[in-house]
Amino acid sequence: MLNLAYSTDDDWAVRILPSLDEILLDHTHCEKKAASTALGLIFRYQHRREMMTSLSELAREELEHFELCLTLLDERGIVFQRQRPSAYASRLHVVVRDGEPQKLTDLLLIGALIEARSCERMRILSVALPEEKLRTFYKDLLASEARHHMLYVDLAATYAPRDEVMARLEVLAAHEAEVIRTEAPVARLHSAGPQKHTR
Amino acid sequence: MLNLAYSTDDDWAVRILPSLDEILLDHTHCEKKAASTALGLIFRYQHRREMMTSLSELAREELEHFELCLTLLDERGIVFQRQRPSAYASRLHVVVRDGEPQKLTDLLLIGALIEARSCERMRILSVALPEEKLRTFYKDLLASEARHHMLYVDLAATYAPRDEVMARLEVLAAHEAEVIRTEAPVARLHSAGPQKHTR
Repeated sequence: MLNLAYSTDDDWAVRILPSLDEILLDHTHCEKKAASTALGLIFRYQHRREMMTSLSELAREELEHFELCLTLLDERGIVFQRQRPSAYASRLHVVVRDGEPQKLTDLLLIGALIEARSCERMRILSVALPEEKLRTFYKDLLASEARHHMLYVDLAATYAPRDEVMARLEVLAAHEAEVIRTEAPVARLHSAGPQKHTR
Repeated sequence: MLNLAYSTDDDWAVRILPSLDEILLDHTHCEKKAASTALGLIFRYQHRREMMTSLSELAREELEHFELCLTLLDERGIVFQRQRPSAYASRLHVVVRDGEPQKLTDLLLIGALIEARSCERMRILSVALPEEKLRTFYKDLLASEARHHMLYVDLAATYAPRDEVMARLEVLAAHEAEVIRTEAPVARLHSAGPQKHTR
């Protein structure tokens, strides 16, 4: 369903757990960036009427999650502040093709893959985190990430034949798998996660 | 309440009426830009925790209005497409002071004035338009524009003494009055409006 070419190893949740505050902060930034991505597409492709309403709804939902994350940070005494992002998103975009409509297809499918990876990671957190409150928090967010994944794929299929879109999605998913596996070992929602400590 | 230094003449609604489609399209773009302005402030001032939630809520509301406007355009057979904006917003920003926190104060107060002018113009439309459906449409949006005006002023007063903020607002309102009065005679929500036809 999520069209990912690589499944995160079970160990990831264990490795990020000592850096949970960093993950929660990163997640907050991710929601903000997801809203900004959708709004960026609205500005760049305003002649594509079919996308406008659904991207606007998506951006609103991401902003709502941003607000939920901010409240969560407040409750835990974590200060919302700048944080160096993982290079994940910028590395993903390296393969975006020039020229339309290929560029639009790629931007939408990369959006789809980011949502898919978020969904996969949140599902892990919704099971592996020790606090029930946090597990529920992530369980509640999961469904919309999966929906956003499908929305981006469907939008791509509005502007190009679906079989071409799905073939391109497979190529981009392989790229995404390579990127996430080789990300710097930092505690981010979209990174390989910190190395295991060996003693 | 709206802190404007110039009241639009009664004649404005009469003059824009023949260009109503253009006004509705411009209004749609304005809602989109208002969301983008709020999101831009969220990115630029993410260390100002106090602003994050309210700007995010504001952006969501603007996006909701954007969607309502899109539906209205659809119903009237108006194509949502690029449109040359009035120079209003860029001219307003010419006087933004360098250096913080003055820059933040000015950006917030200019945001406040744009919302105030939108509110004033929408109030005129909510009375002067011949179609009841459109009058109601604008009546429903008015209240939030006024609320957004106050929100921006209050945010500015979070980061600087309120009397200084109100004094600066007066200066910026005088600038805004000059800008709107001397805007190109095009049919935009934030312009002087087309010239009256003389025969």
